[in-house]
Amino acid sequence: MMTSLGDKGEGHRETTALLGNEDEGSVQTQTKVLNQGSWTQVSCPCCVSEQVEPLVLIQLSDNIQPVTKRWLISLIEVPERDGGAALLAHPGEDECGDVIVVSAPRCTLLRATEDLGLCKKYHNGDMVAFSYNDRDNFRNVDDMQEFLTLAERQYIVKYELDFLRAQKGQKIPGVPESQGVLKARENICQKLEKAGVIKDIFPLHDKQRLTDLCRNWYSGKQIWGQPLDSIQAYFGGTVGFYFSFLDFYTWALVPPAILGLVLTFLLPGGGSGAGVVKEQAGGVVEVDDSPSVSGHMVQAVFSMLWSTLVMEFWKRRSSSLSHRWGLLHLAERFAEPRPGFHGTLGINPVTGRLEPLFPEWQRQLRVGLVSVPLVGFFLGMVVLGMTGFYHGEALAQGFHQDSGSLFSGALLYLPSVAHIVYTNMLGNVYRTVAMQLTEWENHREESSFQNHHTTKVLLFTFFNYFAVLFHIAFYKQDLPLLRKRLASLLIVTQLVNQCTEVVVPFIVDRFFSAPQKKQQEDDPNVDKLRAQRSLPPFPGLFAEYIELLVQFGYLSLFSCVYPLTAVLLLLNNVTEIRADAYKICKLFRKPFSAPVSNIGVWQTAFEVLGFVSVMSNCWLLLLSPRVREFCLEGGISGRNIILFAILVEHVLILVKMILAFMIPDEPDWVRIKREQIEFHSMQALGQQKL
Amino acid sequence: MMTSLGDKGEGHRETTALLGNEDEGSVQTQTKVLNQGSWTQVSCPCCVSEQVEPLVLIQLSDNIQPVTKRWLISLIEVPERDGGAALLAHPGEDECGDVIVVSAPRCTLLRATEDLGLCKKYHNGDMVAFSYNDRDNFRNVDDMQEFLTLAERQYIVKYELDFLRAQKGQKIPGVPESQGVLKARENICQKLEKAGVIKDIFPLHDKQRLTDLCRNWYSGKQIWGQPLDSIQAYFGGTVGFYFSFLDFYTWALVPPAILGLVLTFLLPGGGSGAGVVKEQAGGVVEVDDSPSVSGHMVQAVFSMLWSTLVMEFWKRRSSSLSHRWGLLHLAERFAEPRPGFHGTLGINPVTGRLEPLFPEWQRQLRVGLVSVPLVGFFLGMVVLGMTGFYHGEALAQGFHQDSGSLFSGALLYLPSVAHIVYTNMLGNVYRTVAMQLTEWENHREESSFQNHHTTKVLLFTFFNYFAVLFHIAFYKQDLPLLRKRLASLLIVTQLVNQCTEVVVPFIVDRFFSAPQKKQQEDDPNVDKLRAQRSLPPFPGLFAEYIELLVQFGYLSLFSCVYPLTAVLLLLNNVTEIRADAYKICKLFRKPFSAPVSNIGVWQTAFEVLGFVSVMSNCWLLLLSPRVREFCLEGGISGRNIILFAILVEHVLILVKMILAFMIPDEPDWVRIKREQIEFHSMQALGQQKL
Repeated sequence: MMTSLGDKGEGHRETTALLGNEDEGSVQTQTKVLNQGSWTQVSCPCCVSEQVEPLVLIQLSDNIQPVTKRWLISLIEVPERDGGAALLAHPGEDECGDVIVVSAPRCTLLRATEDLGLCKKYHNGDMVAFSYNDRDNFRNVDDMQEFLTLAERQYIVKYELDFLRAQKGQKIPGVPESQGVLKARENICQKLEKAGVIKDIFPLHDKQRLTDLCRNWYSGKQIWGQPLDSIQAYFGGTVGFYFSFLDFYTWALVPPAILGLVLTFLLPGGGSGAGVVKEQAGGVVEVDDSPSVSGHMVQAVFSMLWSTLVMEFWKRRSSSLSHRWGLLHLAERFAEPRPGFHGTLGINPVTGRLEPLFPEWQRQLRVGLVSVPLVGFFLGMVVLGMTGFYHGEALAQGFHQDSGSLFSGALLYLPSVAHIVYTNMLGNVYRTVAMQLTEWENHREESSFQNHHTTKVLLFTFFNYFAVLFHIAFYKQDLPLLRKRLASLLIVTQLVNQCTEVVVPFIVDRFFSAPQKKQQEDDPNVDKLRAQRSLPPFPGLFAEYIELLVQFGYLSLFSCVYPLTAVLLLLNNVTEIRADAYKICKLFRKPFSAPVSNIGVWQTAFEVLGFVSVMSNCWLLLLSPRVREFCLEGGISGRNIILFAILVEHVLILVKMILAFMIPDEPDWVRIKREQIEFHSMQALGQQKL
Repeated sequence: MMTSLGDKGEGHRETTALLGNEDEGSVQTQTKVLNQGSWTQVSCPCCVSEQVEPLVLIQLSDNIQPVTKRWLISLIEVPERDGGAALLAHPGEDECGDVIVVSAPRCTLLRATEDLGLCKKYHNGDMVAFSYNDRDNFRNVDDMQEFLTLAERQYIVKYELDFLRAQKGQKIPGVPESQGVLKARENICQKLEKAGVIKDIFPLHDKQRLTDLCRNWYSGKQIWGQPLDSIQAYFGGTVGFYFSFLDFYTWALVPPAILGLVLTFLLPGGGSGAGVVKEQAGGVVEVDDSPSVSGHMVQAVFSMLWSTLVMEFWKRRSSSLSHRWGLLHLAERFAEPRPGFHGTLGINPVTGRLEPLFPEWQRQLRVGLVSVPLVGFFLGMVVLGMTGFYHGEALAQGFHQDSGSLFSGALLYLPSVAHIVYTNMLGNVYRTVAMQLTEWENHREESSFQNHHTTKVLLFTFFNYFAVLFHIAFYKQDLPLLRKRLASLLIVTQLVNQCTEVVVPFIVDRFFSAPQKKQQEDDPNVDKLRAQRSLPPFPGLFAEYIELLVQFGYLSLFSCVYPLTAVLLLLNNVTEIRADAYKICKLFRKPFSAPVSNIGVWQTAFEVLGFVSVMSNCWLLLLSPRVREFCLEGGISGRNIILFAILVEHVLILVKMILAFMIPDEPDWVRIKREQIEFHSMQALGQQKL
């Protein structure tokens, strides 16, 4: 299925233009790792090709029996109608080795493309949902390297492997009877992982493409933008959307950063206080000096409207990226349920296929009556921990003042230590609970599973980060302390981030990658696979997104007390982009990345934060001593100030909602494309029944 | 196209079971009005039928030239490919008369059914979007009386007439040159109406079906429900949805009515005061007695959550009605634009048809930069008027106290009179402005036009109704006055409604219908048409909906000050249903009613009101003297009460939003049907290109 790369210069290759174009030998180098003759044979004449591209590596346990390995290879190779995955398998270095390399023939790739609902370029240039029957009308359909991105090919292999289902009474050869019996329709890969036969399944890097990508992304002269199309092509949808969002969000930080600079340094009497705070070593100043009332107001109102505008324009950007990458008509709802889904076997009323069914109302009951209260309970535990910490601190301080001994001095640290231990333990327990709860909710679609899981972890993490700040702002009502905390958090967070994301990776790369590079010089073909196997698995994008969300929280929730937030965040994000890019390219195994059409629940999280920010900013303005002075001078009573603040809050929320409603969620051209497809499918439905 | 009614008892006729079933001669009677031979000939062999059903009447001007009438008839009759409407026309009593009766042949009806995207029963019992090519697989496709409802047949005639477009250089014969020249693609019916040739176009009543409907609806023993399916079949989508909503909403009033009764009469010390207020002649009591604090709270929280639940369950009800009536897949977006739409001629990018185009962003600019500020200006004028009224009243009262003469006593009435005149004039100006603005916004779809127009009028009317109450509640902060006003408004509104909707119609029917009945006895066939022509045109459902919205406003915004609101409204609505039914059946011409899939912008209006009610109720609780006493006794400061009220408000809004999010907008079975159709159309799109 691999054609020569010589015919690549045809012109219609916007999305893959940066991949291995300069070096025509790249893919050949990669494929030379494996002996071409050892691949299993393709069953379909149209899929025969001279060279096979290794896509995915199955890492087996060290003590695997050859009979088990042979059985697995045959399963991978057998056509789908016989219960196999219709893929191509290669036994690796030798028949007894602990890896299987998997690839996919053309027909399997094309059929899966239709199942997933990916859109591809039609002969007239439109993006059209791919249909296997109509394949000849799509561009590049004979060249899989052009037609599908690397990430899509690899995801399809995983998709096919995930749907290997056991036939009735099947047994795993070479595995003890207690573990080796499969139930009818049991997920074979999950079973093999449980039985310890499969250690991991991960997609393989393509060294040459990766080098090209890195050069265009972070190690070259590329300063202002990121090669988003190449990122999406190489790493897939979720990663592509993360970096697009990071890019968009970083640019969006420019206006508030400029405003912050102007308010701090240019406006007469503006925020010189804040400037001083910044200059004096990380915000440990006790002076109560805040920006002037008008600066305060401008900053607050600006940041409230800014957050809505950013998210609305991101939605438009997101939908145009989604159209560009052919992800606008994903058919997840109509595809097979996700591997972990279980239920009573029945006919799906929508698609008419035989599959496990699980009633929607039962899932909603589980979410509403079990998950929501449990999450609430854990959030309560966070608050409890914080209250306990403050209580313990007061106790310890009191005790120290009374006795003043060395022991009581050491005891001062006890509450902090106890709180840290408590928070960590709680976090670990919660992560397990969140995963198991979401599994138990039994979502049919992977995206729905991901969204529910992310929401749970997100709420907890966010609460953990902001509980202290909210406590200071709303309960203690101590603005100077809030300003100090915010400044130190921003600087500490940045330092920690830079350390973990830039310095540590750099050291790791120097010390750990050097021996591998040497090995590769000895025997490049075999060791490339081994090098990838030695990398740790990619931890997912949750940590990256939550970092952005917490940033966004600092900025929108409390920005009016510390106007330079946006400047610091902008500086941070410019390096963040490079660090994240370096991390995903060099330090981890390549992750599988499902085709998705947006950033999912993160979008909602950012939007909700935007609305919460209105409340917190209005409250902070109300607390601000300068606003109080101003009102007292004007002879306005405290009651009326509060009522006025409420009024302002409601008006701002209304304005935000109207803005969100007025700005269309997709650009006009995407809407037209979408409506075209809807119209055509309506017409097709009418004509089909002739 | 009219088959004998003898074969009607087949069983699959849920929606029309009540129409003319008992009296088989009904339709024949109706059609005997006209001489069957005078109908224009059908052009298509499959449409030939013995009897033609008169559907729509075109009322011409008295001095119409026979040549103009002949031209119009020929235009109606000519097939669509020749620029006609492909309908059937009948010249009425004679060739010179001032009416044209229009009907539609089978093929025209079927093609329009597809254009409109109506769903009909497929041979397997599912509701499927009708396709002309696949017509033989739909049930009852040979019997138009069964296949389409009367309202649908009549709407299709209007739809076809509306799309009569002029060819280049066409002239209207018999009309002076200055008025009679048509531009290319000009709307002929609109032009003829402007030129005074056509006075009105309205659908004809079917006397027998109407009698049956009335018997089942309001004049018979039917007490607990309404024959919603028959109403929808006879009057069409908008009317069907209005009465369904009225029905649903009236039932939904039962729980708050019971709660109100319990709080007022049963709870010890509960709201005996409110009971007294009610008993003493329409709320002119000066005593300050409100329900107890707990009753207050219960009532307020209940009404806030109740409003969300009602609207969420209505959405579910609405979508199942919509599916049942085949209105779930209306194709308005893909059909021809509405008659008033204009723009530069071009190819519609979605459907590929030649039609006027108008860019979406230009429409949004017009809405955002002109319509919104203008509406805001008029709302400002309402506030200005109210302020002027209060100012003038204070002035007049001061003057009267100073002078005390008869003249100054009479002057006391001047502000009220001036305010009423001002409000009426402003209202009239606003209605014209709103209609012209909406026309100028140039909406492509009729539903979008209706929604924008309704929103404009709605905002103004609502503001007019509630400005005084809000003024009392928020500015004067005078709870006893608010309670008095609310009670008197409720009672006055009810009395006025009962008068205008029950008593007046009854008198009109007695005095005005009697002569007509006599005429009918003389010459029933001809005079039936004449009787319908003499009725006033139906004024639309706006007044009915706004009445419900205002009710809902009284109930949810201020209910906690007057707990018996729900009881009064329940009583009112039970008679309201009968009165509205009587009105639409007997007192007006039958209205055209477009197929719609929900109550449109009214749903949003009710939901918005639900959220505003949280704010107003929290505020009213804050003002309530008993709550204040309670807090003072508990030693809570005024500042903290306000902060607590804000907290409660935010929590309640959050709870409402979560409720709205958690309750699915359509029942599971409707969702499955919808997804089935989406899946099939996706499959059809893939297969079509083979």
